[in-house]
Amino acid sequence: MTTSLTLYDIPSTLPSKAWSPNIYKVRYVLNYKGLPHHTEWVEFPHIEGLYKRLGAQASDTKPDGVTPHYTLPLLHDHSTGALVSDSAAIARYLDKTYPETPSVIPKGTDTFHYAFNEALLSHFQVAALWRFLAKSNDILNPVSEEYNRRVREATLSGGQRLEDVVPKGEEKERAWAKLEEVFGKVDAWYGKGDRYVMGDVVSYADFTVSAWIMWFRTLFGVDSEEWKDVSRWHGGRWGALVKDLEKYETVL
Amino acid sequence: MTTSLTLYDIPSTLPSKAWSPNIYKVRYVLNYKGLPHHTEWVEFPHIEGLYKRLGAQASDTKPDGVTPHYTLPLLHDHSTGALVSDSAAIARYLDKTYPETPSVIPKGTDTFHYAFNEALLSHFQVAALWRFLAKSNDILNPVSEEYNRRVREATLSGGQRLEDVVPKGEEKERAWAKLEEVFGKVDAWYGKGDRYVMGDVVSYADFTVSAWIMWFRTLFGVDSEEWKDVSRWHGGRWGALVKDLEKYETVL
Repeated sequence: MTTSLTLYDIPSTLPSKAWSPNIYKVRYVLNYKGLPHHTEWVEFPHIEGLYKRLGAQASDTKPDGVTPHYTLPLLHDHSTGALVSDSAAIARYLDKTYPETPSVIPKGTDTFHYAFNEALLSHFQVAALWRFLAKSNDILNPVSEEYNRRVREATLSGGQRLEDVVPKGEEKERAWAKLEEVFGKVDAWYGKGDRYVMGDVVSYADFTVSAWIMWFRTLFGVDSEEWKDVSRWHGGRWGALVKDLEKYETVL
Repeated sequence: MTTSLTLYDIPSTLPSKAWSPNIYKVRYVLNYKGLPHHTEWVEFPHIEGLYKRLGAQASDTKPDGVTPHYTLPLLHDHSTGALVSDSAAIARYLDKTYPETPSVIPKGTDTFHYAFNEALLSHFQVAALWRFLAKSNDILNPVSEEYNRRVREATLSGGQRLEDVVPKGEEKERAWAKLEEVFGKVDAWYGKGDRYVMGDVVSYADFTVSAWIMWFRTLFGVDSEEWKDVSRWHGGRWGALVKDLEKYETVL
């Protein structure tokens, strides 16, 4: 198979550079399918310029419903000329374009995958996961850090600084307990012996879950109490999942 | 196959007696599987007594998290002695106990089915579907009508009467537009040519969707503007689904 795929990602100050859950979803898919690819690093303020230079269409709009929202991941498939953004759309594109590779959205599960993602995100909203996510800013390079802070702080109520959004002290304890409770609701969807969403077969839904879980390891560190907590919650389901999919994390 | 299954249902004043979406889900499953069964009618205030008489365990608790919440459907399988409540649990029980019948939760889709139901209900919550559901009270027999009104009105804020909960006039127009918008979000989960959640194979997820859609026909009437509206929304997806599954609606 000859493929020529470029995955555009946002760099961090971490050794692997990679950090973003949404982009890890695509990396998982590419590595699981065994599709050779190359990562290009793009700082936050340069994403719009990249889209315009490549002639790519934004797959999303800003809250006004009109202004294009330029986001990564963006995948450029040089062999077909396709430019695809949005992790799930990229997964679907790769399933369709490379049918000889293992499917990540098996036949008959497309609608289920959409609903699964919505149900998962709606739980994360209940758990106010975005408050922990605000911590991502700490690991960005200065040019992205400044840009991301400006954009995010503009949408926060009460003109809060990102640092003040991340729960601390007693508030963190409460938020952490809530997080465990919400992950418990997701855990309840799974059959008792099931490692993956589809039982013993990996699917895109697992990459979605794992990408979000892994993010706790990325931000707090592999030796942190936080990562130890998340890893052992619900019979160790989350730690085992991330460990299991580790072989598809490689940044190429 | 010899089965001896009793489905406990709540009667209405309609000719078919059946009306409840959650109970229709089970009826769909039983008929789809071709499992002979018999419906027993139980008025709302007699459900608790039925559970106690049969020695059945409630599958849910009231909002206090402790008091058992006795609900229908309840299925009594006389051949195994099993008493199962909650529509989805009954579907899983029947798949497991009668493996020679067509599966409604195909292998690998169990977790997806849980997430699908949650995503669907969370959309219905956004659309305030429960306000329209309040209309169900109109078709109950007096003994259930009085009981249901007392229970429901006690949980409504401002001591509202059920009649005042159902949107009317301009408010109804707004609520109806919202409902169409929310159904549109569910429609967006489906592949363009797909009739069913899993493409061309019926699954329990379809019964869930259809049972809720059908409820608009039950309450407003097959010739109502409301039913015509719902039927034609989103390329006629919802009307076609209910029509398609009509053959599994039969009350035995």
